[in-house]
Amino acid sequence: MTHRVRYGMVGGGEGAFIGAVHRMAARLDDGWELVCGAFSADAIKARRSGAALGVPAGRCYDNFTAMMAHEALLPTAQRMQCVVIVTPNHLHLPVALAAFQHGFHVLSDKPATASLSECRELAARLRHSGVHYGLTHAYSGYPMIREARARIARGELGAVRKILVEYTQGWLALPIERDGQKQAAWRLDPAQAGVGGCMGDIGVHAFQLAEFTTGLAVQELSAHLHSVVPGRKLDDDGTVLLRFGNGASGVLVASQICVGDENNLRLRVYGDQASLDWQQMEPNSLWLRGIDGPAQLLRTGGAGTGPEAAAAQRVPGGHPEGYIEAFANLYREFGQLLQHGGVTSVPGIETALRGMAFVETAVASSAAGNQWLPLPACLAPASD
Amino acid sequence: MTHRVRYGMVGGGEGAFIGAVHRMAARLDDGWELVCGAFSADAIKARRSGAALGVPAGRCYDNFTAMMAHEALLPTAQRMQCVVIVTPNHLHLPVALAAFQHGFHVLSDKPATASLSECRELAARLRHSGVHYGLTHAYSGYPMIREARARIARGELGAVRKILVEYTQGWLALPIERDGQKQAAWRLDPAQAGVGGCMGDIGVHAFQLAEFTTGLAVQELSAHLHSVVPGRKLDDDGTVLLRFGNGASGVLVASQICVGDENNLRLRVYGDQASLDWQQMEPNSLWLRGIDGPAQLLRTGGAGTGPEAAAAQRVPGGHPEGYIEAFANLYREFGQLLQHGGVTSVPGIETALRGMAFVETAVASSAAGNQWLPLPACLAPASD
Amino acid sequence: MTHRVRYGMVGGGEGAFIGAVHRMAARLDDGWELVCGAFSADAIKARRSGAALGVPAGRCYDNFTAMMAHEALLPTAQRMQCVVIVTPNHLHLPVALAAFQHGFHVLSDKPATASLSECRELAARLRHSGVHYGLTHAYSGYPMIREARARIARGELGAVRKILVEYTQGWLALPIERDGQKQAAWRLDPAQAGVGGCMGDIGVHAFQLAEFTTGLAVQELSAHLHSVVPGRKLDDDGTVLLRFGNGASGVLVASQICVGDENNLRLRVYGDQASLDWQQMEPNSLWLRGIDGPAQLLRTGGAGTGPEAAAAQRVPGGHPEGYIEAFANLYREFGQLLQHGGVTSVPGIETALRGMAFVETAVASSAAGNQWLPLPACLAPASD
Amino acid sequence: MTHRVRYGMVGGGEGAFIGAVHRMAARLDDGWELVCGAFSADAIKARRSGAALGVPAGRCYDNFTAMMAHEALLPTAQRMQCVVIVTPNHLHLPVALAAFQHGFHVLSDKPATASLSECRELAARLRHSGVHYGLTHAYSGYPMIREARARIARGELGAVRKILVEYTQGWLALPIERDGQKQAAWRLDPAQAGVGGCMGDIGVHAFQLAEFTTGLAVQELSAHLHSVVPGRKLDDDGTVLLRFGNGASGVLVASQICVGDENNLRLRVYGDQASLDWQQMEPNSLWLRGIDGPAQLLRTGGAGTGPEAAAAQRVPGGHPEGYIEAFANLYREFGQLLQHGGVTSVPGIETALRGMAFVETAVASSAAGNQWLPLPACLAPASD
Repeated sequence: MTHRVRYGMVGGGEGAFIGAVHRMAARLDDGWELVCGAFSADAIKARRSGAALGVPAGRCYDNFTAMMAHEALLPTAQRMQCVVIVTPNHLHLPVALAAFQHGFHVLSDKPATASLSECRELAARLRHSGVHYGLTHAYSGYPMIREARARIARGELGAVRKILVEYTQGWLALPIERDGQKQAAWRLDPAQAGVGGCMGDIGVHAFQLAEFTTGLAVQELSAHLHSVVPGRKLDDDGTVLLRFGNGASGVLVASQICVGDENNLRLRVYGDQASLDWQQMEPNSLWLRGIDGPAQLLRTGGAGTGPEAAAAQRVPGGHPEGYIEAFANLYREFGQLLQHGGVTSVPGIETALRGMAFVETAVASSAAGNQWLPLPACLAPASD
Repeated sequence: MTHRVRYGMVGGGEGAFIGAVHRMAARLDDGWELVCGAFSADAIKARRSGAALGVPAGRCYDNFTAMMAHEALLPTAQRMQCVVIVTPNHLHLPVALAAFQHGFHVLSDKPATASLSECRELAARLRHSGVHYGLTHAYSGYPMIREARARIARGELGAVRKILVEYTQGWLALPIERDGQKQAAWRLDPAQAGVGGCMGDIGVHAFQLAEFTTGLAVQELSAHLHSVVPGRKLDDDGTVLLRFGNGASGVLVASQICVGDENNLRLRVYGDQASLDWQQMEPNSLWLRGIDGPAQLLRTGGAGTGPEAAAAQRVPGGHPEGYIEAFANLYREFGQLLQHGGVTSVPGIETALRGMAFVETAVASSAAGNQWLPLPACLAPASD
Repeated sequence: MTHRVRYGMVGGGEGAFIGAVHRMAARLDDGWELVCGAFSADAIKARRSGAALGVPAGRCYDNFTAMMAHEALLPTAQRMQCVVIVTPNHLHLPVALAAFQHGFHVLSDKPATASLSECRELAARLRHSGVHYGLTHAYSGYPMIREARARIARGELGAVRKILVEYTQGWLALPIERDGQKQAAWRLDPAQAGVGGCMGDIGVHAFQLAEFTTGLAVQELSAHLHSVVPGRKLDDDGTVLLRFGNGASGVLVASQICVGDENNLRLRVYGDQASLDWQQMEPNSLWLRGIDGPAQLLRTGGAGTGPEAAAAQRVPGGHPEGYIEAFANLYREFGQLLQHGGVTSVPGIETALRGMAFVETAVASSAAGNQWLPLPACLAPASD
Repeated sequence: MTHRVRYGMVGGGEGAFIGAVHRMAARLDDGWELVCGAFSADAIKARRSGAALGVPAGRCYDNFTAMMAHEALLPTAQRMQCVVIVTPNHLHLPVALAAFQHGFHVLSDKPATASLSECRELAARLRHSGVHYGLTHAYSGYPMIREARARIARGELGAVRKILVEYTQGWLALPIERDGQKQAAWRLDPAQAGVGGCMGDIGVHAFQLAEFTTGLAVQELSAHLHSVVPGRKLDDDGTVLLRFGNGASGVLVASQICVGDENNLRLRVYGDQASLDWQQMEPNSLWLRGIDGPAQLLRTGGAGTGPEAAAAQRVPGGHPEGYIEAFANLYREFGQLLQHGGVTSVPGIETALRGMAFVETAVASSAAGNQWLPLPACLAPASD
């Protein structure tokens, strides 16, 4: 099947979080194929991870340098076309530069690099590389964010005056980085994370979302960053005041010490005619509130949404995002049953019989003047 | 990659809804591989659909009979292992029987068949077939439904007394089946749908969810079905009163004429000690309300949830289901860029630069006493 | 002040719930004045209750018979005009009849009487009495219910097809009536409550709300009532299927054994053009969902609501119902301070100073380039 | 009835908003009695307003000076005890000082005065006056705010680290003050409002709520105020960064140009052990989220709430605030019927009959095997 993009992954081995998300996302629409990887700095772990992913042993590399070099020698139709970078931040630049050098496209997790000067180098080297570079700010992929962006671009809010964006989490409220929590440890280590802690991890998402959705550019900012948990070298909390190019003001609140908050990303945009309000915890809903008339609730796939949202959705209106995952759970479990046997949660013939018994008995009861009727008993043969 | 289940699909060609959902679900965890299909009753459409899905022409069959016959002749390591049935209801039985006959496993969309007698035949034939049969009641795959089931099984609700389950939609409020809406047309045609209209389409989901989650079996029912839109031969609305084996009572409301409702599936289970409340429109939330103490909100991946929910989730707590789809949108768009070029919504180097500029300027401003600082201008080289 | 309606209360003494609500409601708009009462069947308690309410001793009666007789002899300008009945159900009829006999208007808590035959007697006697009779189905007083009624009357929903009304509570999930809980005890005693338990207590509210809001009359019903807690003589749970005069169907669910539910009263009305959805737990919100376009959220006092809702609200849009109570708490506490001294939660001069310091310092800081400025310390003189 | 506090009101005449709220709050618990007033700067309007309120003509004064002077001469048992000030801000000081001078208590609407120096004068004069002074920050009267304060005081949140408080409204998004909207006009006029616009009107509420609930004092602030609508002399929008005494940081966002927002007052307090989240638009709910375990939803009157909340509520758990107002609507309408006749929305005998018919028919249907039974027709005698 030649229509898929062949990609190699750097990082994303055992125990990683975001690498697995990238792979699922890549598979969902069948447009990508994982052909190789340097999944870990630990070569043994790298190979074990690759094997578990079905990557041929010959294309599980010890490090990204080897990966670039070997892949570049493969026939065009076989070699990877794109490198997906899911390492800690400090490796983003060297991996990307190596990819550029060998002519591979790059799709990188955020933030782009560990510092602005690194990023400028990235930009300069990209310029004449002839390849594409993408950055996975996932929140900009939500259908209702696309809807919001389209409506703002069409002027439905009038002139944008005020932007409130917040991203609060609670998972770093305690110093778990000292207890060996890997995700916390590298994010709070300047050598791996770069200059920003909370700002580099989630603040930059909030920033990107505000600019992406409104089409406005921040021109000035005033920041108030804190390391609330004693001993941290990087910020774990902060407020940044923003001035946009059109004169609008903004408030960006990002924090990882907000006990009890999950991934509370919310964007509110106020124009002089209307406002929009979106929260990641209920991503299928977008509130539109005008200066007159009742508030409107726009929903993914619902009436009144436009082609931008439609292009970004996979199931008809009313099925929440997550429906696919629920479905996939049944596939996973049935696949396990087929390959390994055992007990399963997937509904089987007993459920099938009961379901049909329900439908028929309901029809019969209704036809018989709502009579109470028993469901036929002992429906299933002995072994389901 | 020999670890995937090889499957063939019957139905699910161009314009179909649920077939595409099945394929995405099958891909998500990389455990399944689509190797063949009879995607449509229209042979030309079937081939075109297969080609678009990357299925080799030689394994795009004109009909399911041909598919079964040919696949059975292929070497074991190549031939399909499982048939996925996503046709209108009246074909569920013949396809499944053909699969059983050739020794293929079956994963079928619901309802199992067009009638209970068909389903009994299915069960009888399955019994000695040596294959597995699964039915995709997708809602039972949600993590919080697994959590609910586990808690009820552990007795956290005490004795279950009352079950309220409702599934209301509005899409059939008008007679759209007469205007060529394909999804509506077959669902309201007894020849294709079977005896149940709304009950067979969504009522059976509500029924299965109630039984699956509580572990209780309905023993008797009294039904009140209606064809609200004049001229319909099947029910489009109804209420079914339920009596469960343990003496609990239930009310099942299913309707497709509830204007404005999307897929309002909700399950409430009341025990003598506590109750649970779940809604598909916010599938990551499960309310637990006890006889004492405040209500608790259980969340997918959140504190207090158990291994059953954890086994069914893919992203850490706080990321909503749907996060993967948002991510996948970026993959889709970047893939299109790589293969076809053009303009993209995927964040690129400009975003990368602005993001790093944001983080660094925020750190600098904060360090300088919250001074207002400009973001460096003209960040990106001429071509992004 | 001659503009108030003078009323006497029967029931509502110490420990009663609904009597106190009636009195607060009567006071809110200053249109009523409590001039006398027979507050309890226990004469000592009746007098003590009256004294606490500021009713002159001479008009605190031992029983309603005495009250009627004595009040009728007072000069017109003094005597009560209306009897408010807040007793257990079985006394509603005799009190009302006595009132009719003496020419007093009646405002009665629901249900009207303990049985339909009693109610017929009530109606017959009312007919030629020349007085007015009112029944406090409080839920019909909410602004958004008025809004809903007006919209349905105007035909905005098209033909009403389906009505779902539910009222579930959990407070009777355990047999608390055996532990001396007074509110539970009389409601579950046929001698005091009449034929209906849950149905008479809250089911009748749901019924009234459905008829009041839609303007439709139930013509037939099929009921499924249960006494879930063993030993109860009256229903504590039930489902009633309804057929309305225009052919619409309805489902009424009422229960008092739904553990964890507070006063979950919800009404959904589906027409062929649009639907309405209202919940008492958030009484200021009313959802309007059309066959096209996004859902609209109508809010008390908000844009798009009409004169019917406006006539029933007291505070401008955006202040929730409950705002008055919050305000009243300060009045209550400040009044206690004035009369009894002590410590208070009412903000005082310290708060006054801090508030002004906040405003001025904010203005000064902003004017000085967002400089951090201290709030003036030691603001208040020694004794607040 | 000697138990009520006798008060006089300054301001609050025809067309005023907050004066009417004060009066309703004063009446709710029957602890206050309006005995006199200077309701408007316009003497004719003042008298007309007083008459409408049932205040005797002899105690409707032309101005507050006259009111103080005359009331002071009345016998102790008759004269007012407390002055309630509900004028524009610039009159708060002179009225309060006059009250102090004559020995009257003062209950004042916020903000205390038009400037901090005025407020200092107020404090100094109060000090030796021997009277009480109260300030109606109504939001501190909500039961769930009392609950939050009690829990924070008990240390349930651990050390407070971060406070987010926001109060956004949209009603000043357009320059309505130029179109004669009275409420807008004085609030944006420095001569009447003082130095703060949005900050003095609602920012000070947010500030007070944060300090009141947490028991912490702001020590420093950095403010960013804006006049978004061109031509305004006072701020209509702003963000104020806060530093509390214990080292916690805070962000206060207040705005009146947030199109579509009603009275969006929200307070979030994050400790190192747990957090609290409260919103005025749903004042009966308070979220408590710990570092472990599921989030808990505390509700007014619900399980798990303490005596502080209980002391501030009037109806049992489950009845929303607003229930009293709904009730009061029926009283208002029935009172109008009694005094003026006409058509009413108050349920009457027809409703009474239908309600009892419902209960009895439900019981009968259930007893008869859920048979469909008609409701008795033509229930009411000819005239209701």
